[in-house]
Amino acid sequence: MINFGIVGLGRIGKVHLSNVQNHCLNAKVIAACPVKSKDQEFLKDNGVELYYNDYKQMIQEAQIDAVIIASPTAFHYDHIVIAAEAGKHIFCEKPVDLNYEKVKIVSEIVETAGIHFMLGFNRRFDPHIIQLKKAINNGEAGVPRIVKITSRDPHPPPIDFIKNSGGLFFDMSIHDFDMARYLVDDEVVQVTANGKVFGDLDMEKYDDIDTAVITLIFKKGCMVQIDNSRYCSYGYDQRIEVFGEKGIVATQNVLENRLLKVNELGHHSARAKYFFIERYSDSYRNELIDFVDTLQNKKSPSISAEDGLASLAIAMAAKKSMKEKIPISIS
Amino acid sequence: MINFGIVGLGRIGKVHLSNVQNHCLNAKVIAACPVKSKDQEFLKDNGVELYYNDYKQMIQEAQIDAVIIASPTAFHYDHIVIAAEAGKHIFCEKPVDLNYEKVKIVSEIVETAGIHFMLGFNRRFDPHIIQLKKAINNGEAGVPRIVKITSRDPHPPPIDFIKNSGGLFFDMSIHDFDMARYLVDDEVVQVTANGKVFGDLDMEKYDDIDTAVITLIFKKGCMVQIDNSRYCSYGYDQRIEVFGEKGIVATQNVLENRLLKVNELGHHSARAKYFFIERYSDSYRNELIDFVDTLQNKKSPSISAEDGLASLAIAMAAKKSMKEKIPISIS
Amino acid sequence: MINFGIVGLGRIGKVHLSNVQNHCLNAKVIAACPVKSKDQEFLKDNGVELYYNDYKQMIQEAQIDAVIIASPTAFHYDHIVIAAEAGKHIFCEKPVDLNYEKVKIVSEIVETAGIHFMLGFNRRFDPHIIQLKKAINNGEAGVPRIVKITSRDPHPPPIDFIKNSGGLFFDMSIHDFDMARYLVDDEVVQVTANGKVFGDLDMEKYDDIDTAVITLIFKKGCMVQIDNSRYCSYGYDQRIEVFGEKGIVATQNVLENRLLKVNELGHHSARAKYFFIERYSDSYRNELIDFVDTLQNKKSPSISAEDGLASLAIAMAAKKSMKEKIPISIS
Amino acid sequence: MINFGIVGLGRIGKVHLSNVQNHCLNAKVIAACPVKSKDQEFLKDNGVELYYNDYKQMIQEAQIDAVIIASPTAFHYDHIVIAAEAGKHIFCEKPVDLNYEKVKIVSEIVETAGIHFMLGFNRRFDPHIIQLKKAINNGEAGVPRIVKITSRDPHPPPIDFIKNSGGLFFDMSIHDFDMARYLVDDEVVQVTANGKVFGDLDMEKYDDIDTAVITLIFKKGCMVQIDNSRYCSYGYDQRIEVFGEKGIVATQNVLENRLLKVNELGHHSARAKYFFIERYSDSYRNELIDFVDTLQNKKSPSISAEDGLASLAIAMAAKKSMKEKIPISIS
Repeated sequence: MINFGIVGLGRIGKVHLSNVQNHCLNAKVIAACPVKSKDQEFLKDNGVELYYNDYKQMIQEAQIDAVIIASPTAFHYDHIVIAAEAGKHIFCEKPVDLNYEKVKIVSEIVETAGIHFMLGFNRRFDPHIIQLKKAINNGEAGVPRIVKITSRDPHPPPIDFIKNSGGLFFDMSIHDFDMARYLVDDEVVQVTANGKVFGDLDMEKYDDIDTAVITLIFKKGCMVQIDNSRYCSYGYDQRIEVFGEKGIVATQNVLENRLLKVNELGHHSARAKYFFIERYSDSYRNELIDFVDTLQNKKSPSISAEDGLASLAIAMAAKKSMKEKIPISIS
Repeated sequence: MINFGIVGLGRIGKVHLSNVQNHCLNAKVIAACPVKSKDQEFLKDNGVELYYNDYKQMIQEAQIDAVIIASPTAFHYDHIVIAAEAGKHIFCEKPVDLNYEKVKIVSEIVETAGIHFMLGFNRRFDPHIIQLKKAINNGEAGVPRIVKITSRDPHPPPIDFIKNSGGLFFDMSIHDFDMARYLVDDEVVQVTANGKVFGDLDMEKYDDIDTAVITLIFKKGCMVQIDNSRYCSYGYDQRIEVFGEKGIVATQNVLENRLLKVNELGHHSARAKYFFIERYSDSYRNELIDFVDTLQNKKSPSISAEDGLASLAIAMAAKKSMKEKIPISIS
Repeated sequence: MINFGIVGLGRIGKVHLSNVQNHCLNAKVIAACPVKSKDQEFLKDNGVELYYNDYKQMIQEAQIDAVIIASPTAFHYDHIVIAAEAGKHIFCEKPVDLNYEKVKIVSEIVETAGIHFMLGFNRRFDPHIIQLKKAINNGEAGVPRIVKITSRDPHPPPIDFIKNSGGLFFDMSIHDFDMARYLVDDEVVQVTANGKVFGDLDMEKYDDIDTAVITLIFKKGCMVQIDNSRYCSYGYDQRIEVFGEKGIVATQNVLENRLLKVNELGHHSARAKYFFIERYSDSYRNELIDFVDTLQNKKSPSISAEDGLASLAIAMAAKKSMKEKIPISIS
Repeated sequence: MINFGIVGLGRIGKVHLSNVQNHCLNAKVIAACPVKSKDQEFLKDNGVELYYNDYKQMIQEAQIDAVIIASPTAFHYDHIVIAAEAGKHIFCEKPVDLNYEKVKIVSEIVETAGIHFMLGFNRRFDPHIIQLKKAINNGEAGVPRIVKITSRDPHPPPIDFIKNSGGLFFDMSIHDFDMARYLVDDEVVQVTANGKVFGDLDMEKYDDIDTAVITLIFKKGCMVQIDNSRYCSYGYDQRIEVFGEKGIVATQNVLENRLLKVNELGHHSARAKYFFIERYSDSYRNELIDFVDTLQNKKSPSISAEDGLASLAIAMAAKKSMKEKIPISIS
């Protein structure tokens, strides 16, 4: 039995907590922090009995094997260090941190501590993307030559989130950078990015953009085109196309239902699922099942701190490319 | 060089005439009848130089090898007999006639005269249906067990046409009966039909219906479900699905364009092509190319008077089944 | 809190049990029967503590409010009568019974007992079909004129099941009959059915078929075409199309994933979900949530014994029509 | 009546010639050059009676109003100058020339000569793209923010063609550059391009590539991602997606037929039409109809030498960007 503590009870924290309680055999969240009065009913309904206000205290006192870090990004580093020192395994929401050096240190700390550390790039566990990865591995497209990733959100996050998010490349695109690395199975050597503010929110005030196109060049030659928007009228757009000498393998949007309507205006089918909570519910569940599995069977975690580091480096290069209007090389 | 005469310059007659002039190598329509003043420009533009008011005269005087019969159904029989007696080959619009005995006689007459006779069940020459037939012949669905044919018109024909058409089974469904025989490659042994008037036009006055469902049972067991409507708000609906032990082969509607629109209401694609002139333009062209080819290479015509007879028998059985509310056997 | 007992721990019984424990707020299965040694771990894992071998004893002794009847069809009647006499509410798997008179008695018994009785026509609770029903109710197709239901199983059930199932019309088509009544919102007045054995299993020995086409005529004129097969090579085919004066609303198959592969052979997408357990997992969950909701809020059950009676009458008429080769009227 | 001469009887020349003879009312190709013996039958069949070996002689002697220039690119400039001096209207295949200064001169010459000059960016006349343009103009996507153009050829052109083509950006991408300008309705201010040789042909020898990704930034902010490949296993891939604040309008590939096959491996539909001759047959016809229309009605030509100049500038910038590994600004 794996006992978990969790830090952070925001939307994603609650998703992780429910998933452990309902879907992970031989694993249970027994402790949570920080616990506000409004969270108590949720915790009780989900069988969590130990409530803490202090993270350090939870790590020291609760009989936990591992911790789920779902706190705001600014706290990830400290929460990781404390857990690692106590020998607790760590599942950490992305990104590890916005500072490259700190992520590097995390990578070393978890190595030294000999603990399991897994980063929450949940999309790798989406059933459709798993099938896509399998198809690529089966060589159904051939060696990837061009990859196209479309990733558009139905609306921007709250301004308070944007202020501390590091900007679109660190918040949104980073998922696409990880996806590109995962699917192409190679490392990026050059990044070119362009960005723009089209929407009403004054993103420029926070040194941010709402729309971007990015080109990644991989070591073996694969060229990846990413496009991002924070304003997608038709919901959450999540499409990936991998083109090689044999053809295409691609994931299309998952629609809300399978209705087809036909009338004098034409053929009509449903919208894509509205946002990440709906679209990636399976992947949030599967990533925790996978983490518990790696703990129980002493496998290496599926997504490491180094993966976080690599995607962070791409995000940093993208920002620099946009600012300096040149392609940025990554070594 | 095959020289054609044509009788009947209505919508379909003009389609056939253009197709011979523009698409049939080594064939030409040189004579037409009956020619009204409003048709003269069309004929001139299409290089037809001999105009007749009397059909018999055209058959006797014009140096033609074959005749295209696109006159009203009521005249088909006489036009066939006259052409056959003169030894002219015949391409005849469907149906041959609404009277079973007369169609039988036609079948004998053309046999005796030793001429080529081809009936205009044009859909057999549609490129999509040709691919469907090929897929069936390749065994891609296995032996047909269930066939579903949907055939719906965007609007009813003029009342004057309805009066003399023999009704929905003889006018609309007869195409589907031919299609079923062609695709299943077997003969019908039992017909059950239900019909109904849903629309505003008082079809009952003309002993007709505007909506029907029909079940055909074939000798080797295949079961065919047909549905017809004269009121299809979204255009011309022409779908066929053939199901066997290996799976499905089907033809979907041909859409007006390949646009995809996505907005907050969902995914939207175009309408089906509006009606038969748009949807089956290729098949009208191809059937005449095929007829000319059978003449030039002395092959047997692709669609015989017997095919017309078989479909007529099914239409008669369908009408009887609807009236007497019992399945009708065909021997 | 609603306490449930359950009778029958076969595949569907276990699905219902899990759904109550995991998805129904304020409801719990506390007792089960008959419990074999192989079932004990499953029951324990799911928090069921009271095990019985005798159904009567469970009804009398366990402090339950309602019973889920998932026993073989042959036992449904007795299990219903005993539960009704004890004043327990009943959720019963379809069909109630194969005998029309017994189903009628059930209908009266539950009325007299003043209990809630709901029949497990689960498809009504499928999210896609819920949207379809809403679209019909919104008038998006207009008044239904033609309905087409395709329902094909990937493989036949075990011969032992077939022997006691009453045959394809009572086992498979009955879902489609209920669906037709539900969607058209009217009653059937005439049934015509044709059936055939195409597959290897000697269905004729059990007075059964493996393939059928059925035509239902409804009171207000809607015509419904159903086709069924027990041998569907490509999985579980579940499509419904409703056609009216405004157009079509339809449900398409739910596919295993959203991959698109393109190669020199064309465009390829996934298979439909394999069978009912995968395809209708949501509907099994939702029907029990709904049942609990009707109990707690004293609403009338969504699917009554009368609904079972009506579909049974259609199945009986279908069988009779096939045998006697005539349409059968239902009053 | 507009009389045409044509120079160049290669594949595209013949397409244009047939289109004028068969589809342009009140227009006719009467003279051709240079005429090899193998072309004579084709010309005769198409009613062309005046044959020349010398272009200048044709321009001077034949009573033509306009000339279709379908000669190799290297001759375009001279053929344009001679025709312009003689006051003949000009329809010229793209590109005008690979040299920017010469195209600029062409632009001035045709202005001075007061003749109609139209450049053969045929895709603007594709029915699907016409609908796309209309949808954009109707504001169905909103103001374009991101445009994605995929343009992949089934196989590379012959090496001899490649040698003189100027390379992928001048030969293939130039169509996409024109399309981007046409659809976005704005001018490009910055170009970034990456290219790569993946295939077997030694493109590097000819300073060429077989795969490219290109990013165009437009004055008003729209960002366009183009991807090109000379090796597309599944045929000719021609997709465009325009994304704005209201959603997407897009053109999908036109498939060879509308068959749907379903088997144990999934759902299968046809390939895209194989290459430009099949895919854009309508656009080749429509562009000549349009040119004749602009002549007869004295409208300004739909695609000017300036359009050619603008796309050429983008191609030059793309090549420079790839070589120097920096974004190139266009003023």
